[in-house]
Amino acid sequence: MSIYVVGHKNPDTDSICAAISYAALKQAMGEDATAIRCGEINKETQYALDYFDVAAPILATKVEAGQKVIQVDHNEVGQAIDGLADAELIEIVDHHRFGGLNTAGPIYVHTEPVGCTSTIIANMFWDKNINIPKDIAGLLLSAIMSDTVLYKSPTCTDKDHDAAEKLAEIAEVDLHEYAMAMLKAGAGVGDKTPAEIAKTDSKPFSFGSYKALVSQISVMDTAEVLDMKADITAAMKDICDKEGYNLIMLMVTDIIEESTDLVFYGEPKKLIADAFKQDASGDCIHLPGVMSRKKQIVPPLTEAAAKF
Amino acid sequence: MSIYVVGHKNPDTDSICAAISYAALKQAMGEDATAIRCGEINKETQYALDYFDVAAPILATKVEAGQKVIQVDHNEVGQAIDGLADAELIEIVDHHRFGGLNTAGPIYVHTEPVGCTSTIIANMFWDKNINIPKDIAGLLLSAIMSDTVLYKSPTCTDKDHDAAEKLAEIAEVDLHEYAMAMLKAGAGVGDKTPAEIAKTDSKPFSFGSYKALVSQISVMDTAEVLDMKADITAAMKDICDKEGYNLIMLMVTDIIEESTDLVFYGEPKKLIADAFKQDASGDCIHLPGVMSRKKQIVPPLTEAAAKF
Repeated sequence: MSIYVVGHKNPDTDSICAAISYAALKQAMGEDATAIRCGEINKETQYALDYFDVAAPILATKVEAGQKVIQVDHNEVGQAIDGLADAELIEIVDHHRFGGLNTAGPIYVHTEPVGCTSTIIANMFWDKNINIPKDIAGLLLSAIMSDTVLYKSPTCTDKDHDAAEKLAEIAEVDLHEYAMAMLKAGAGVGDKTPAEIAKTDSKPFSFGSYKALVSQISVMDTAEVLDMKADITAAMKDICDKEGYNLIMLMVTDIIEESTDLVFYGEPKKLIADAFKQDASGDCIHLPGVMSRKKQIVPPLTEAAAKF
Repeated sequence: MSIYVVGHKNPDTDSICAAISYAALKQAMGEDATAIRCGEINKETQYALDYFDVAAPILATKVEAGQKVIQVDHNEVGQAIDGLADAELIEIVDHHRFGGLNTAGPIYVHTEPVGCTSTIIANMFWDKNINIPKDIAGLLLSAIMSDTVLYKSPTCTDKDHDAAEKLAEIAEVDLHEYAMAMLKAGAGVGDKTPAEIAKTDSKPFSFGSYKALVSQISVMDTAEVLDMKADITAAMKDICDKEGYNLIMLMVTDIIEESTDLVFYGEPKKLIADAFKQDASGDCIHLPGVMSRKKQIVPPLTEAAAKF
């Protein structure tokens, strides 16, 4: 039975490309591994898949008992494919905080505080002296440029930078030109409804006893989202009521200005006020220099919740 | 400020030797790292330190806020040095199950399902093409032979075996002769009180809502422990009352016969009965072929608790 390699729910470019690439690495090592996904492909990821002519992983919303699974780009239970608790988790390759990881026995885990899971996977190919095929190099590069927002995110490390430069050579693309075209393909509101905007690239988190959803939309101009703020917060109220969240936050991240407007609905707003040391009695705060959910949004909320 | 490298409370040979060796690897890579320990050195470990003429790590029962810490050979909060929650955890190198790991941000984690943390560390030296000094090779070898009980434990993998053979060459010792002498130095009851026996190499675990302590004593002849069973279970009752455990289990592991007598006190005994499919209404069950707490005791208890 093939081992499934899967990224998080509501997959971003890293979750899709890391799954495909890690399955390819395993296959090159003689193991039977297949990339799957547990959510729709977004426009940015579709651009990368089309550009390098790679098929999307098979959509599987649930894994069965006994299935061997490798998680890439996530480790928190709330972000994982349904059925994972009954399946057999055998590996994790990730670059996120740990959110209460529990396993029955020891497993293989490799996490690093770098900007992208695909950076770790590219280095695994190189450490094992296995050639990275051109299309896989293109996908790994796409994931790094997506996660680090063209190196601008504070999560970006020298290791991400070095990997991306080497991968661009293998993939035979002009790094900046390709990355900007890919980001543009995924940026903006397009024809999304307010509810879809509120859930763009969303991930659930527990901050202390509060259940929160943190979404992120990347734009070239924040006005196209902020002009719809009233409709978006109304949609957030709906999502809170239906899905049992205490708080929903949407990062409206300007990839040109390198800042984020955080639009939010729910309680306690004091958690947001404490985390970012701003008046959060309204429904939006401006966070200059903030681009990373992982490094600049989740840690202050985690720390604020610990002091509640 | 030096980074502290520390094993678990009540350290065994792997926790001490992995801390010393990983600090040595970090130093060889130009980082300022110091091995510390948060408990007494046992007789087996002292034999290894004396044989290879290495000083024991500094005893530190608590780490201060802001201190950078690397955990080796453990990841569960209950097994970690006091004060860790306020310190800055930057890395984990381990070979155990995950017991609810939570971090504020991403960190470096390398775990593998192998028999010994020192096997992972030996391979890190080799992967980075850094020579392992003779004394460090001796300590890494000691840890592997201790954790795998001379390759006999079911946790032992080919990777442990291969590493130990290479390390014995570097350390210039006859592997079997040295390992048997080291195990003998640590085996048996010696002048321990019943309470000390009950807490030999003990580790706390949470099985569902039950707080348990699982200890392990290695012997050449189980009679020397089982003859004191009444005094040991009386001491266990005392420990439960004072330290708030629901259950205490002592693995009396016969390293010659390759079996374990599990002596226990507390409730629910049904957890033990369910886990090992035996009548557990008394205070001891015999488990042929069982030598590993990690692979043969903790997983069945975890699974039994999940079905409670």
